[in-house]
Amino acid sequence: MSNPTAAMLVIGDEILSGRTRDANMHYLAGELTTHGIDLREVRVVSDDAPAIVAAVRALSDGYEHVFTSGGIGPTHDDITADCIAEAFGASIDVREDARALLAAHYERQGSELNEARLRMARIPEGASLIDNPVSIAPGFTLENVHVMAGVPSVFKAMVASVLPTLTGGAPLLSQSLRIDRGEGDIAGPLGKLAADFPDLSIGSYPFQKDGAYGANIVIRGHDGAQIDAAIVRLAAEMGA
Amino acid sequence: MSNPTAAMLVIGDEILSGRTRDANMHYLAGELTTHGIDLREVRVVSDDAPAIVAAVRALSDGYEHVFTSGGIGPTHDDITADCIAEAFGASIDVREDARALLAAHYERQGSELNEARLRMARIPEGASLIDNPVSIAPGFTLENVHVMAGVPSVFKAMVASVLPTLTGGAPLLSQSLRIDRGEGDIAGPLGKLAADFPDLSIGSYPFQKDGAYGANIVIRGHDGAQIDAAIVRLAAEMGA
Repeated sequence: MSNPTAAMLVIGDEILSGRTRDANMHYLAGELTTHGIDLREVRVVSDDAPAIVAAVRALSDGYEHVFTSGGIGPTHDDITADCIAEAFGASIDVREDARALLAAHYERQGSELNEARLRMARIPEGASLIDNPVSIAPGFTLENVHVMAGVPSVFKAMVASVLPTLTGGAPLLSQSLRIDRGEGDIAGPLGKLAADFPDLSIGSYPFQKDGAYGANIVIRGHDGAQIDAAIVRLAAEMGA
Repeated sequence: MSNPTAAMLVIGDEILSGRTRDANMHYLAGELTTHGIDLREVRVVSDDAPAIVAAVRALSDGYEHVFTSGGIGPTHDDITADCIAEAFGASIDVREDARALLAAHYERQGSELNEARLRMARIPEGASLIDNPVSIAPGFTLENVHVMAGVPSVFKAMVASVLPTLTGGAPLLSQSLRIDRGEGDIAGPLGKLAADFPDLSIGSYPFQKDGAYGANIVIRGHDGAQIDAAIVRLAAEMGA
């Protein structure tokens, strides 16, 4: 009874050029962990149609869910919706329910629903809409791919719309222990601990602070009692 | 005369579980842009040998350079070096020059070069070492893959060691213009600008601040005069 698997696809030149530091990956990772969905892989690709289509196909085939971030606005570089349609061989056009959402929104704002904005109502055939309470233009789910905006506040709102509709598994639990010794001193006992608790994931994250070496040991799993037992043994062995 | 292409592979459960926010991707992206190497794709995978091996092979085939981050320490979850060797069918063992570096370092520190620490001297056959002035244990380059540590201070030091050895292209230049209007209002002229300057990459990054919509327009390319011309035209059209 393992948890559903997921991958994320971040679309955007601005991340790959170093202009913007991505925030959505870290946010989604935390939300999925809480919801009991195992994020196994993330890919970041540029605003390039063949790259997006290939990544969507590979991730959709490899994982139960795929979450995308970026490229669904009104400008010429927003090509994600068309790429998703292409990846699944679906047609794409302005859809009436999405158009109506945008028309009402821009009328309230006193803005025009022009040709560029209407692009945001282009939805692949067979998709269901993802609610966007922040800026109205919807995301969508096609097959197992959930397509969301890149602006962090909108991305978060869309994740909040879509996650409750997905069946999660047991939340991934974790406990950590900080050990003020170099990794090289603790690697032996840590390896034995990992071998004795094969259902737990035991990670060591080294740090240096004020010239001293240490490591945060993080033990993750779905069985809280096992994690307790492993942490207690580790603390005893390390004299922590 | 296009720039060399590159991909990055980030290895680490801690990123995918949301425990840690990756910092190395953003750092490497900026350094590569300055050095004239085009970062085209990033993948993040967990500490899982088949996933690492498959990603290394795919990225090594697809791009001129691959940079990896994470998984080369002394603990049981540090499996990157063995995975790189497997990806290229190379043997791997403790190598004398790497062992000597570590022996001298731990002798200076008054620590023991134990079995766990010796794991950090395991280097695939045919690789060259990457200098690590921060914590000595070296990275390495095998074929077109540059293998570096995940600890950000060490990652940065290794990038500084390896980048000067690589032939870069023309640095990617950029200029940006902030426009205090919604993307939907500027998408038309922006699309025409992109069509008229096919050698430039023109990105629109929307934001919302205090309830008002705006977008940062970023124009990138290798020809500064073209970027100037495009920015001047955009500013004139937008009345900015």
